[in-house]
Amino acid sequence: MVIDDFPTQRIAVIGGGSFGTALASVCANNGHDVSLIVRNSSQVTEINENHTNEHYLPGVLLHSGVRATTSEQCIAHSDVVLLVVPSHAMRETCKRIAPFLRSDVILAHATKGLELGTGARMSTIILDTCPTLSEQRLAVVTGPSHAEEVSRLLPTTLVVASASKVTAECIQDMLMNSVLRVYTNPDVVGAELGGALKNIIALGCGISDGLGYGDNARAAIMTRGLVEISRLGIQLGALYHTFSGLTGLGDLIVTCTSRHSRNWNAGYLLGQGFSLEEALERVGMVVEGVKTTKVALDIASKADVPMPIATAIGDILYAQKSPRIAVDELMSRTRTHEMELFLQETTTGWIFP
Amino acid sequence: MVIDDFPTQRIAVIGGGSFGTALASVCANNGHDVSLIVRNSSQVTEINENHTNEHYLPGVLLHSGVRATTSEQCIAHSDVVLLVVPSHAMRETCKRIAPFLRSDVILAHATKGLELGTGARMSTIILDTCPTLSEQRLAVVTGPSHAEEVSRLLPTTLVVASASKVTAECIQDMLMNSVLRVYTNPDVVGAELGGALKNIIALGCGISDGLGYGDNARAAIMTRGLVEISRLGIQLGALYHTFSGLTGLGDLIVTCTSRHSRNWNAGYLLGQGFSLEEALERVGMVVEGVKTTKVALDIASKADVPMPIATAIGDILYAQKSPRIAVDELMSRTRTHEMELFLQETTTGWIFP
Repeated sequence: MVIDDFPTQRIAVIGGGSFGTALASVCANNGHDVSLIVRNSSQVTEINENHTNEHYLPGVLLHSGVRATTSEQCIAHSDVVLLVVPSHAMRETCKRIAPFLRSDVILAHATKGLELGTGARMSTIILDTCPTLSEQRLAVVTGPSHAEEVSRLLPTTLVVASASKVTAECIQDMLMNSVLRVYTNPDVVGAELGGALKNIIALGCGISDGLGYGDNARAAIMTRGLVEISRLGIQLGALYHTFSGLTGLGDLIVTCTSRHSRNWNAGYLLGQGFSLEEALERVGMVVEGVKTTKVALDIASKADVPMPIATAIGDILYAQKSPRIAVDELMSRTRTHEMELFLQETTTGWIFP
Repeated sequence: MVIDDFPTQRIAVIGGGSFGTALASVCANNGHDVSLIVRNSSQVTEINENHTNEHYLPGVLLHSGVRATTSEQCIAHSDVVLLVVPSHAMRETCKRIAPFLRSDVILAHATKGLELGTGARMSTIILDTCPTLSEQRLAVVTGPSHAEEVSRLLPTTLVVASASKVTAECIQDMLMNSVLRVYTNPDVVGAELGGALKNIIALGCGISDGLGYGDNARAAIMTRGLVEISRLGIQLGALYHTFSGLTGLGDLIVTCTSRHSRNWNAGYLLGQGFSLEEALERVGMVVEGVKTTKVALDIASKADVPMPIATAIGDILYAQKSPRIAVDELMSRTRTHEMELFLQETTTGWIFP
């Protein structure tokens, strides 16, 4: 599984949650020198002695080459730093590690979310807080990937997006092996927005399933939902095609069709008639989509981008609208055609009356 | 649920299977005058007396306005003819009804498939065999729609594609109601190819699930599979964006994530180690994707369109390749980037080394 024709890298992975641990194990498996920076010393002991991280990846045996530590000093010697912290912790983490970064370091992050309040993308926060880092040495790792499956070596695809092809290919070679296929993509904005905005649509699919609606309704919400988040993404500088790819559509599929998704679950409870507070309490973990919907609707409203599905979800989340009434209203809007975004761009052969 | 501002149409629906019956019931429910032409008189009695079609739509009560008949004479008086017959029966059916068609009739079909041997789309067959019909009065009804859910009035979206906007809107108004949202689209080729080609990818998802692979692998096959069938579709004259819409992506989602899909089921059995013959015998119904894969690979080979996923599926179907080896080979191809189809068309900011 080791890729022989690529040099061994010294890699610091920051964040011992499920995805950080899984990526650290992949890198060690690929023959790299990997430090995993975690927050508490009991996790260090567990990972270094038992090669497990039971809380986040129950039952998974990690590669024995993963070396856990609570110290951030190894960053100063790292060729590559991989940030896998929650979105709300990104700014503080970056401020703390910035002084240690080598001038030629490549920094990648694998965090899906937008900053609360500012709506900033993770790469914006990283460039803001790490003055020695240029956009050319920054990359995003994202795509349709439950961490458990990655750590269990089940076939998975990822995308590395970067403004620099060299940087993207460095991370591609670092991660790729016979069960992990990594694609590169130049569209950092699209890759980051796809991962964050898809959670809105996952809430919508959960609501529909909770109402007892079927596969037809869920497929419609996913397809038309993707049109909406693409529309917003293009306004924010993303490329349209990124949303049809692994970081948009692919990630949407993984999130909307898996009962393990917290966002789907919260939506399901709303569809079943629970209040938002009750739903969040029952899910018991952060449901990113609840806040992302608000951020997205604010941006869409300023940019004058229509988002009927996100608007309906917002009405359910923040204005206690009945989910059934919201869906009925969605279905009975004025008739429209499917290509409204594109007809002006293409030669269609459409004969107007 | 009746749309009041649109005139009552006399509609002949040809084909008493699940989707034909469901669409007939929708039209009757919308206030139209509906004849459903079926093949045997026991079905006529059942539909007209009990308002059921238990074999195809078990437990569903049809609208009492649906009038079943075995006679095709009503076609001569119909404003709209809706063909919902299996793809292998399309040519014969059209030859038989052609003499009855009114010169101003609007003809729509809702059949997903390509003709065996010729690879022809259904609308090509219809125009070939109905000399009095012009392309301007022909439409395709497709989209992510299990017939059972349509007949049970669960929220569903459909697409009507036609070269004529007037014709598309006529069918849109005929079908649309508060639980059935209908979009129009000018791209007949794309709408027909999406519905047919998606079955190849459904086979692939079944194979992956049968091998015990996870959500990550299925999402990757769906996303990258959609890239392939879009690529082929564009070669055949479809618009790219149609494949990102309800008739491409939407239909793909419904088919690949539902255990009720025959194509998914056949793939699942192949992934579990059954031979093609055993798999088809166990499914016990026509598995369209098995033949569509062959048709698609033939066209792709002539047109020099790369289809790595369909090729791997073809190797499994027709050359007894081990599914596990085929998937491993797919994952470990040369590294690539995600936007290979589009990079030349777009300004990407991608800095080449």
